[in-house]
Amino acid sequence: MVTNPPRAERELVDALAAYGVATIHEAQGRTGLLGSHLNPIQTGTRIAGSAVTVTVAPGDNTTIGVAVEQCSDGDVLVVTPTAPCDMGYFGDLLATSLQARGVRGLVIDAGVRDVADLREMGFPVWSRCVSAEGTGKGTVGDVNVPIAIAGRVVAPGDAIVADDDGVVVVPRLRLAEVLAAATAREEKEALSRARYAAGEIALDVNDMRPLLERAGVRYVEYSQWHREQQA
Amino acid sequence: MVTNPPRAERELVDALAAYGVATIHEAQGRTGLLGSHLNPIQTGTRIAGSAVTVTVAPGDNTTIGVAVEQCSDGDVLVVTPTAPCDMGYFGDLLATSLQARGVRGLVIDAGVRDVADLREMGFPVWSRCVSAEGTGKGTVGDVNVPIAIAGRVVAPGDAIVADDDGVVVVPRLRLAEVLAAATAREEKEALSRARYAAGEIALDVNDMRPLLERAGVRYVEYSQWHREQQA
Amino acid sequence: MVTNPPRAERELVDALAAYGVATIHEAQGRTGLLGSHLNPIQTGTRIAGSAVTVTVAPGDNTTIGVAVEQCSDGDVLVVTPTAPCDMGYFGDLLATSLQARGVRGLVIDAGVRDVADLREMGFPVWSRCVSAEGTGKGTVGDVNVPIAIAGRVVAPGDAIVADDDGVVVVPRLRLAEVLAAATAREEKEALSRARYAAGEIALDVNDMRPLLERAGVRYVEYSQWHREQQA
Amino acid sequence: MVTNPPRAERELVDALAAYGVATIHEAQGRTGLLGSHLNPIQTGTRIAGSAVTVTVAPGDNTTIGVAVEQCSDGDVLVVTPTAPCDMGYFGDLLATSLQARGVRGLVIDAGVRDVADLREMGFPVWSRCVSAEGTGKGTVGDVNVPIAIAGRVVAPGDAIVADDDGVVVVPRLRLAEVLAAATAREEKEALSRARYAAGEIALDVNDMRPLLERAGVRYVEYSQWHREQQA
Amino acid sequence: MVTNPPRAERELVDALAAYGVATIHEAQGRTGLLGSHLNPIQTGTRIAGSAVTVTVAPGDNTTIGVAVEQCSDGDVLVVTPTAPCDMGYFGDLLATSLQARGVRGLVIDAGVRDVADLREMGFPVWSRCVSAEGTGKGTVGDVNVPIAIAGRVVAPGDAIVADDDGVVVVPRLRLAEVLAAATAREEKEALSRARYAAGEIALDVNDMRPLLERAGVRYVEYSQWHREQQA
Amino acid sequence: MVTNPPRAERELVDALAAYGVATIHEAQGRTGLLGSHLNPIQTGTRIAGSAVTVTVAPGDNTTIGVAVEQCSDGDVLVVTPTAPCDMGYFGDLLATSLQARGVRGLVIDAGVRDVADLREMGFPVWSRCVSAEGTGKGTVGDVNVPIAIAGRVVAPGDAIVADDDGVVVVPRLRLAEVLAAATAREEKEALSRARYAAGEIALDVNDMRPLLERAGVRYVEYSQWHREQQA
Repeated sequence: MVTNPPRAERELVDALAAYGVATIHEAQGRTGLLGSHLNPIQTGTRIAGSAVTVTVAPGDNTTIGVAVEQCSDGDVLVVTPTAPCDMGYFGDLLATSLQARGVRGLVIDAGVRDVADLREMGFPVWSRCVSAEGTGKGTVGDVNVPIAIAGRVVAPGDAIVADDDGVVVVPRLRLAEVLAAATAREEKEALSRARYAAGEIALDVNDMRPLLERAGVRYVEYSQWHREQQA
Repeated sequence: MVTNPPRAERELVDALAAYGVATIHEAQGRTGLLGSHLNPIQTGTRIAGSAVTVTVAPGDNTTIGVAVEQCSDGDVLVVTPTAPCDMGYFGDLLATSLQARGVRGLVIDAGVRDVADLREMGFPVWSRCVSAEGTGKGTVGDVNVPIAIAGRVVAPGDAIVADDDGVVVVPRLRLAEVLAAATAREEKEALSRARYAAGEIALDVNDMRPLLERAGVRYVEYSQWHREQQA
Repeated sequence: MVTNPPRAERELVDALAAYGVATIHEAQGRTGLLGSHLNPIQTGTRIAGSAVTVTVAPGDNTTIGVAVEQCSDGDVLVVTPTAPCDMGYFGDLLATSLQARGVRGLVIDAGVRDVADLREMGFPVWSRCVSAEGTGKGTVGDVNVPIAIAGRVVAPGDAIVADDDGVVVVPRLRLAEVLAAATAREEKEALSRARYAAGEIALDVNDMRPLLERAGVRYVEYSQWHREQQA
Repeated sequence: MVTNPPRAERELVDALAAYGVATIHEAQGRTGLLGSHLNPIQTGTRIAGSAVTVTVAPGDNTTIGVAVEQCSDGDVLVVTPTAPCDMGYFGDLLATSLQARGVRGLVIDAGVRDVADLREMGFPVWSRCVSAEGTGKGTVGDVNVPIAIAGRVVAPGDAIVADDDGVVVVPRLRLAEVLAAATAREEKEALSRARYAAGEIALDVNDMRPLLERAGVRYVEYSQWHREQQA
Repeated sequence: MVTNPPRAERELVDALAAYGVATIHEAQGRTGLLGSHLNPIQTGTRIAGSAVTVTVAPGDNTTIGVAVEQCSDGDVLVVTPTAPCDMGYFGDLLATSLQARGVRGLVIDAGVRDVADLREMGFPVWSRCVSAEGTGKGTVGDVNVPIAIAGRVVAPGDAIVADDDGVVVVPRLRLAEVLAAATAREEKEALSRARYAAGEIALDVNDMRPLLERAGVRYVEYSQWHREQQA
Repeated sequence: MVTNPPRAERELVDALAAYGVATIHEAQGRTGLLGSHLNPIQTGTRIAGSAVTVTVAPGDNTTIGVAVEQCSDGDVLVVTPTAPCDMGYFGDLLATSLQARGVRGLVIDAGVRDVADLREMGFPVWSRCVSAEGTGKGTVGDVNVPIAIAGRVVAPGDAIVADDDGVVVVPRLRLAEVLAAATAREEKEALSRARYAAGEIALDVNDMRPLLERAGVRYVEYSQWHREQQA
């Protein structure tokens, strides 16, 4: 049970929340994307926050209860079982408690329940599945040590960004760098978007015609192509 | 084709509808939960009703048409194929017919179609999948005998409760007992919820600190933990 | 790169858009349904259009950019990788470009990203999955040749209809015939729907009682059935 | 805990073991097939026996231990959790115990472990998955009452047949009838097989040519078909 | 029903059988790989042959019976349903008939049954699933027209190669070219394999050290890395 | 690229290889089990070794080639992509190279190919899937830093044990302790196994009768139970 871990710097995390998971994943060199089996239970929501990490025993959610005490405003709870488990570890009671402390959401590689309540409360969750099966109490795992979840290592204080595209982790010490890269990427995309909306196409916006030429791409009228097929 | 089966007592079923699937599953000793491959085609809906049970042949939905005649106000249709089949057994026409008779919804371990219409009509469905593939007519199964669906036995007149967390069956004769247990559980949770919302945490609400002590949980400041890791 | 392929006749396609995927699938003799692993990223949307077909290399979305130039008002882009790939080939920039050209939607047997933006823009997509993983550039595939996608052949100019039930392809030259069959089917269903809504049931609407008789169906009161079981 | 249930008649069960799951499924009118998510952990093995039925709590295999006492020579243990669970309920110790009592195999809608040992011991298993995760002890379920498993009801004393194609249940009282139908079907198939092996084809063996004629099937030489496509 | 389609040239196909699916997929520019949901029912078998293509109606295997007549020595039967279907379309009787005609195997985007018999007969199959559920008779599809299967178009007379890695299609007219490329690739790999077996490593065999240098890869002793982490 | 990491002590690892993954998972308090989506491509094989950890870019296996140089006798290569990817990262050439260096096997949360060759060579692999799709070269990841794979953190020098039940990781510094616990558990199980083989049952071997009594388990003759059901 590790207390007072470093936190991802608040202004950086809040600034990062302006960018989507896809943009951030690109901005840090296509790393950090958690496995796509973690799905949002809601749509249209994006969160960013500082990770509080938790491991739980299979079928036992004791440690989530313990971890609440270590959470504060701006955190995201990141939970993984010590062995695979699909049961419903988390419901509206724990969400009420986390929401009261300013926690921004939950990422869990296991099941959750009371999802209608969670949606109504506006408490965002990304989970492996929905399951009404309850867990027991008794075994205590770790809080605020580096954990493995959905293919990535998440350390306490890393930044978590999650939206409808999935979940991405940004290491705490790379936050400023990734934010700058995401900002640059987004600015470039905004320019492209305007040109696309005005009717220009990628071949010109991205200067792709030389690539096509080098690749030897040949344009054929359909009627001629059809004749060739019949030859 | 069995007619006039017993029904789950209406007041009990309606009272049960106040509680979520997760609560009811807990209240009857963690039994009766149907497999989580049955998903709602809508969100935010909960139904409770008395089961009319149906078996259908693979690729043949004749018996659903036959079963409509046995349905009345307050029922839930519960359908399972006699061998696994993912085709679209049920669409807006059958839903119109069931809705006209006051049926509250459908639980089916197979596919459904016309889901946009079903959502618009407000006819709730929990199904294995969505499939536009139509079924034929010709083979007749059973109506109102005990069936196996998604891992549970459902008898005609058992209570079915379904919401965003899944589907649970409550045996007809245990209905009063389970309702009482669910009510008690919910009252206890309401008290906890208020305490959580006020900022108390599970460690205190559930009196978990002795458990942590017995488990020998150790709290370490992050900076000290970090030093220990390097030793 | 084939240019100016034939298009599905506009009035026919627009008329077809009045019918659901399930109806059209039935109307053309239960053929043409694409695999149900292609799911909509939105709900409540139906589109119909003329297919522009595209093959892309695994992990490379170059050809989608190239294909935009071949798209015009009323088209649907239909994309399949030359070998299976789950990465996120398509996002809001390409959607902006297609929307500017009047393209009605995308069907892709691979992943897409920026799905919150796509939903907000109202650009409809049916895809294999959602993935924030970006693709590279460099390899050029084909545009407007017949392709295989989700179990069906789609030729340029075939009609595509997609809604919450899935995606169906109608060969260009069968369009008038399928439209007529869909219209006839829908008219018949409208009559049935009115009778169902008025309380009639399928046994009578579809004249099924002789079938039950031939099948030797026996109706038994529950109390008697219960006694028989105990014998 | 129900003791001394009726058993499927030994000679009938043993005779049924001569036929495959596919044949028996056909022979009883395409009913009784368990969901195809139950897979064998071995290949090339077929078993038939009398069902001893067991329900277990999620994450708790106590009742399997209790059920062993009710098993005798020629039985098949059929186990389902009272709520869905993928953990490893069964391993080589329980298999040793069952094998010592002459039990012929296990069908379980949950996980098993020690599968290399089980294969080496020659103890056949059909399960939902393989999982090394152990279960606890404490909650007692039912033995020898009718259960729901993988979409079918299995009552104690029903016959279970399982092979590489899956698992099928035959109700105890229909055993003689299904055996006769399977035998008849197999004899007919043996004749067909000999004709096929000698080079005859289904069109003639099954007298299908009139069906093709009625369906208006047209035979076209490839070269002519190719010309027609180009017209 | 198209008769006498062109066949893939026998010597080329037989020569291609010397190379694995992975090699051939690379050799034709990473195209033609069928979706990995098509799995072999046996291990250690590779086949190559000329495609006879078949479409079947959902739940109806009539056309496979019809197609047998069009098959001859050296063919591979390639079957896809006109709408998705997981039922067991194919078993030991049809395999007996195909084997008698010299057909080398079956690729089917649906289910098969009698798999123990098929393995014992040595008739190789790649399928979507195993299912004991039988299909009916009545609807006739197409034989020997181009079909879409598992993401690829297969035309009659294309070469099919299948092994434990999956299934790949080679267009008939590219066969010589792909064979040459596969042969060249394999020769190069044989040289590499010998060097690897002798203890050389990829960094040297593929001359990758300059790439690492350009990428700025830094080698650090673990003890020093560990110190840096703690700084 | 970290060189000369600590290794799991050879005698301890070799001793651990005597125990199955299930036993070791229990022995270290039900922790360390990797997700069950990692399946062996062979059956009947168990390996134990010291982890060399590798991260690879999506669609790029450069770093595996680089990591070979860091492998030595008794190691197990443990590979995870920096973002999810199902392509075929590993085939017979890399296996030849690893085998020449005495590497005991591969655990990879991605695809592999040439699986028939790998089986024939006797090079053991646990992977997410089989895929013939090749990867490119160009991006370099990390070697011998802690990685996240299938839900667990694996550090260089941790012990990996894998068999038909799955994959488990044992932290290097807990190796002696876990070995002792596994040995104790296995000894206890050997005694139980002998008693089971001699016909004793779990109720007596594990002294479970008092538990049943406390749980109020009631034994009822089937005939009486049947009468009660009918009351």
